[in-house]
Amino acid sequence: MYCLLKFAPLFLALAVCNGWLFGDFVEKQKELEEIALWPLPQKFQSSAASFKLSHASFQIVHSKQSTAGPSCSLLENAFRRYFEYIFGDMKKQEKSRKKVYDSDLAELQVWITSADPECDGYPSLQTDESYELSVDQPSAVLKAANVWGALRGLETFSQLVYEDDYGVNNINKTDISDFPRFAHRGILLDTSRHFLPLKVILANLEAMAINKFNVFHWHIVDDPSFPYVSRTFPELSQNGAYHPFTHVYTPSDVKMVIEFARMRGIRVIPEFDTPGHTQSWGNGIRDLLTPCYSGSSPSGSFGPVNPILNSSYDFMTQFFKEISTVFPDAYIHLGGDEVDFSCWKSNPDVQKFMAQQGFGTDYSKLESFYIQKLLDIVTSTKKGYMVWQEVFDNGVKLKADTQIHVWKEKQYQDEMAQVTAAGFSALLSSPWYLNRISYGQDWVDIYKADPQNFTGTDAQKKLVIGGEACLWGEYVDATNLTPRLWPRASAVAERLWSDKSVVDVGNAYTRLVQHRCRMVKRGIPAEPLFVGHCRQEYKGL
Amino acid sequence: MYCLLKFAPLFLALAVCNGWLFGDFVEKQKELEEIALWPLPQKFQSSAASFKLSHASFQIVHSKQSTAGPSCSLLENAFRRYFEYIFGDMKKQEKSRKKVYDSDLAELQVWITSADPECDGYPSLQTDESYELSVDQPSAVLKAANVWGALRGLETFSQLVYEDDYGVNNINKTDISDFPRFAHRGILLDTSRHFLPLKVILANLEAMAINKFNVFHWHIVDDPSFPYVSRTFPELSQNGAYHPFTHVYTPSDVKMVIEFARMRGIRVIPEFDTPGHTQSWGNGIRDLLTPCYSGSSPSGSFGPVNPILNSSYDFMTQFFKEISTVFPDAYIHLGGDEVDFSCWKSNPDVQKFMAQQGFGTDYSKLESFYIQKLLDIVTSTKKGYMVWQEVFDNGVKLKADTQIHVWKEKQYQDEMAQVTAAGFSALLSSPWYLNRISYGQDWVDIYKADPQNFTGTDAQKKLVIGGEACLWGEYVDATNLTPRLWPRASAVAERLWSDKSVVDVGNAYTRLVQHRCRMVKRGIPAEPLFVGHCRQEYKGL
Repeated sequence: MYCLLKFAPLFLALAVCNGWLFGDFVEKQKELEEIALWPLPQKFQSSAASFKLSHASFQIVHSKQSTAGPSCSLLENAFRRYFEYIFGDMKKQEKSRKKVYDSDLAELQVWITSADPECDGYPSLQTDESYELSVDQPSAVLKAANVWGALRGLETFSQLVYEDDYGVNNINKTDISDFPRFAHRGILLDTSRHFLPLKVILANLEAMAINKFNVFHWHIVDDPSFPYVSRTFPELSQNGAYHPFTHVYTPSDVKMVIEFARMRGIRVIPEFDTPGHTQSWGNGIRDLLTPCYSGSSPSGSFGPVNPILNSSYDFMTQFFKEISTVFPDAYIHLGGDEVDFSCWKSNPDVQKFMAQQGFGTDYSKLESFYIQKLLDIVTSTKKGYMVWQEVFDNGVKLKADTQIHVWKEKQYQDEMAQVTAAGFSALLSSPWYLNRISYGQDWVDIYKADPQNFTGTDAQKKLVIGGEACLWGEYVDATNLTPRLWPRASAVAERLWSDKSVVDVGNAYTRLVQHRCRMVKRGIPAEPLFVGHCRQEYKGL
Repeated sequence: MYCLLKFAPLFLALAVCNGWLFGDFVEKQKELEEIALWPLPQKFQSSAASFKLSHASFQIVHSKQSTAGPSCSLLENAFRRYFEYIFGDMKKQEKSRKKVYDSDLAELQVWITSADPECDGYPSLQTDESYELSVDQPSAVLKAANVWGALRGLETFSQLVYEDDYGVNNINKTDISDFPRFAHRGILLDTSRHFLPLKVILANLEAMAINKFNVFHWHIVDDPSFPYVSRTFPELSQNGAYHPFTHVYTPSDVKMVIEFARMRGIRVIPEFDTPGHTQSWGNGIRDLLTPCYSGSSPSGSFGPVNPILNSSYDFMTQFFKEISTVFPDAYIHLGGDEVDFSCWKSNPDVQKFMAQQGFGTDYSKLESFYIQKLLDIVTSTKKGYMVWQEVFDNGVKLKADTQIHVWKEKQYQDEMAQVTAAGFSALLSSPWYLNRISYGQDWVDIYKADPQNFTGTDAQKKLVIGGEACLWGEYVDATNLTPRLWPRASAVAERLWSDKSVVDVGNAYTRLVQHRCRMVKRGIPAEPLFVGHCRQEYKGL
């Protein structure tokens, strides 16, 4: 049999919900438990005064002063989405709204204050996601500079609503002023090691919005497969995908992902990692990869992109020209990690090139040579770029606005210090490789990691733009990805959004248990933290 | 970024499919890869001669000599189930069978040879699950003593069918003679720490049948909740379940589980663990649990079942009388593990009782006193019992046919030796606690464990009746249980069914990759072993 006590951090299981609401009139424990905000807002005041909401009369509307109106389909969609999250699917309920029950709170007014609400725009690194939310009679008001802040505030509003014992929706008198601690809060999904059906990607974008993530880092291709359908080079997926029809992302699939993400305030940053991690590219593009040699003759296998041929750069120029138009975000992730030199070393033509260039036997100089040319190509498309830390470590000359993605586990704090000391923006993933699993409540260590926890000046700390939770695809696909990612990624979400003082694990546990039940209620199969139950369990399989 | 090489046991990924088919005319690599039997049959001969199967003409029928016929609904259901697994859901295909395409193989004849085919019976520990399958023109023949062997053979037949490049179903000329190595091949699911909706239990019974498991060990209640609805003591679930209506198993739910399992040749053995692990029982039954003391007064908390009150035994008598009629299997699992003595020690009445009985301060004597009385109660219901190893370790006097369930990880081989040396039947779970997870391909160690791998005589080895894969519920519920269990439990399935010589991990990897895709195709979200894809990916979320 099985020993509960041996393995269970009971201090977590028994953590009582107290002390986390700093409102003045906190009275009812039960109701507090229902209001489990995640991630915790920056400033929050709540009172025990509660208002009933009736689905028959409550409305989410544009405020009269708002610069956005019914033509803002992004907001209209969000209003509908959050109305349904609050009241359930109205299609299943009585359609007649004749008998109108009064709501104590008549409406939520959404007030966009900027001249341009950005209804048809895309979020960016500079996006202002702040909002102010005031819940009081007769109307609640959500005020934001633009639609992006409004989306975050709508999520918070929906999290404030709780059902009482009669199933009636209630919301307490509340004031919130909120903004993210970091501008870049991402999730990396890997669609190369396993293909992820569109449905899975969209569901995870939805989960990201619920957790206020704002970047989908799409590690779309890698060694094992190339599911991205390129208009310019269709042979890449034709020969490089697991299957050219069933295991690919067509241009319309990609558009759908980008639009679904945009509607939720999420940037889509694609990663096309070169010169390593490109085995699948070689299936479609002749001579792109370096032929490896065994002794004096080609071995039949291939290494990284061939850096000594002009054709390689011609290809990259055309390819990234396409990518720069397909993906609207200002940044592209260019990878640049884990380049294996053994194949380059084996190739006599590469050896000759090394000698000509005066690189000696330092193949990292060849790598830098390639990367440098690639960066120039991408710069000419007017995109900014993100790269994995090796590119910085190898001393490649980088544009000032390059973002360095720190991923190696060893001494990552030192790396963060070095990157920022050099004046580059830094992004942390090292403690957040969520593909790595272990038995028990591993969310606690995930939660405790802090991207600014390194020795450095204030100026250096400011260069930390955020982080990403990475779910590499070796062991996950549609069958298990979503529960493995959530609610573990939620721990990263709070770290990147909430104030750095929000570190109480017991308090976080209490809220996270409820937050995961909220995700389950919304159709996301987020796995349990520990023993217990949700009022509404997952209905799928 | 992420290093594939660092963490990936590439020898597995690259393991080539060879050497596992011992047929004479093995030629086509591709077809061999399609025929991935799991678990591997005891005797298997295949040739490259293949026969086409058309859904419009192929049939699964009772052979003329069979003692079973159309009135055998268990087989009729199984015929339909396996026909659909082979050809897909016919409802979605053209209903007209006018245009009949010939099958090279007209039918599979199922031939039950015993006078009693056991159509309406239940499988048991003594059940003969052997079968013989011959696939050749004009008809394939599946011969078994009873329906239970036929079920195993139908699964094997369905695994032999593979699609060629035109989507046509083919099957090779094959002869199989098969039987299980161990009689008890179980899966433990825990419905107390998290409630599992009926749908999840049924889906896992289906997955069990695909893997030739034959025991569902239903750890139905425990400390956290009591979801079993008792007719005799409805207050147990009324007060002990997470929710008395939404988080319980009604008598009809239990019947459905038992019948669904029976249709697949699976026994349902319920576990009602006492005297420990009973916190949830105390909510419904007054005075059942021992009041713990803090100094000289009750602390308000409760310990194990109170062993000094006659009322405890009266309750158990009535309760197990009900259980013995609700569950048809000849065995009940009585638990008996991890009894915490601290509460008993604190209670002055218990102290007095200890003195009266002459137990001194040896509380394991008190535990044995309780267990002894419980065993007598259950014996009077004519049921056999299984117990966790502590009951044996503590020297409780046991009926000769008692089955000892070995679960502790430390020196489990020694424990197996001791249990069998004492003449008891033994059941292994120690290496198969599948709730424990780690990063990477942990199925390999699961696969390598062998229940007979201990020092002992042949007679001792024969007392090993099998084993169980256990998925304790602390960290799993409907959101993540199924992919966490499968295909890891499949490794246990092959260990318990196939010959002990079947130990080649590379070969197992090749077959298991395909077996898991087969499960996915059949709607079971079995997680991937490693990088790759299935022709048909999981459609759910």
